[in-house]
Amino acid sequence: MWAAGARRPGLVLAALAALGLALEVLVARRRRPVREVLFFPSRPSCTEALLAEAVSPDDTPGPCPCPLPRGDCAFSRLLRHLLSARRSLELCLFAFSSPQLGRAVRLLHRRGVRVRVVTDAQYMALKGSQIGLLRHAGIQVRHDQESGFMHHKFAIVDRKMLITGSLNWTTEAIQNNRENILIMEDAEYVQPFLEEFERIWEIYDPHKYMFFSKENK
Amino acid sequence: MWAAGARRPGLVLAALAALGLALEVLVARRRRPVREVLFFPSRPSCTEALLAEAVSPDDTPGPCPCPLPRGDCAFSRLLRHLLSARRSLELCLFAFSSPQLGRAVRLLHRRGVRVRVVTDAQYMALKGSQIGLLRHAGIQVRHDQESGFMHHKFAIVDRKMLITGSLNWTTEAIQNNRENILIMEDAEYVQPFLEEFERIWEIYDPHKYMFFSKENK
Repeated sequence: MWAAGARRPGLVLAALAALGLALEVLVARRRRPVREVLFFPSRPSCTEALLAEAVSPDDTPGPCPCPLPRGDCAFSRLLRHLLSARRSLELCLFAFSSPQLGRAVRLLHRRGVRVRVVTDAQYMALKGSQIGLLRHAGIQVRHDQESGFMHHKFAIVDRKMLITGSLNWTTEAIQNNRENILIMEDAEYVQPFLEEFERIWEIYDPHKYMFFSKENK
Repeated sequence: MWAAGARRPGLVLAALAALGLALEVLVARRRRPVREVLFFPSRPSCTEALLAEAVSPDDTPGPCPCPLPRGDCAFSRLLRHLLSARRSLELCLFAFSSPQLGRAVRLLHRRGVRVRVVTDAQYMALKGSQIGLLRHAGIQVRHDQESGFMHHKFAIVDRKMLITGSLNWTTEAIQNNRENILIMEDAEYVQPFLEEFERIWEIYDPHKYMFFSKENK
């Protein structure tokens, strides 16, 4: 073949150019994985437009009358990634009381996304918790029965994007605490969290609930 | 050159083999970055050997008389990564009361590692907190003066390895809670955390302390 190449260098060069072009198309098609770090506190911001867009992507929402500023911030970025879910959403959350995040999760459920929630038994009953509203909407929720806390704070979107960090899903944490979130699509990080979710989901199967309080353990 | 290759295919093959070998050596030299996910609770384990090895790497430590099991577990892996620090350690921790992790950090400080700690003002004063012992050992500690929590739980080893997750550095969290830690050397994740540490370190400069309690804010 090299001998043939030596005789017809034009042909070889054309073949190489075609190969280069094909590689370029392949690389362009393979979107760069999301790798993002968000820090909080995030300034309060209006998220109505984001939520409205998620309900009906084709309609242009009217302006929201609330006085909060619009635009990009750590919280709006978190919400946007969450609302990108199309098929599944796994949530493993110690505390979940943010009304905006609660609305987003119920919206995804209504849109047909399979939502599963794991939470801490003690914190899910606190005032302001979103867990009751999620259950009321028909979303599957399971909780621990352990003496320690179910202290994770992670979400997995469409089994490929992991959202994890120090941030509990509460307005207090979002607006007042110093917190971090990593948003990542590296399979090496996402896969162990997916497996851990499935493991916890099975351990917290309601058929295994014993109906005694943590204080008695 | 191809024409020459066609005349002396043996030479071309030898050159290709040498190139392959050189590439292989280069790849082997460039150590694969650490990418690890740890889940807790971790079983209680004896970490005396790990700590003794960190004090004098050349001595073989005698067996520890405690009844705890030895061997690999999530906590021993966390400790090992922490003890790998040679030059610097940045800690940004909401709660720090684990005596074993406290010993490890003081040991690194004695070994000449530049340790800097940022913590939450309310939690650093709680019973069992390691912060007083760190300060007593001469380690620099700075804390918030904010109404929200300094809720981060991350460490940066030698400015290249990030340890972050849901885990507060308390024995309770390590042994009883469901928690996660990511250990990563990807610059895309490490760099923003380094910058955030430096930013917070400056904000919490003691010259800026106002000496009023959070309750009055």
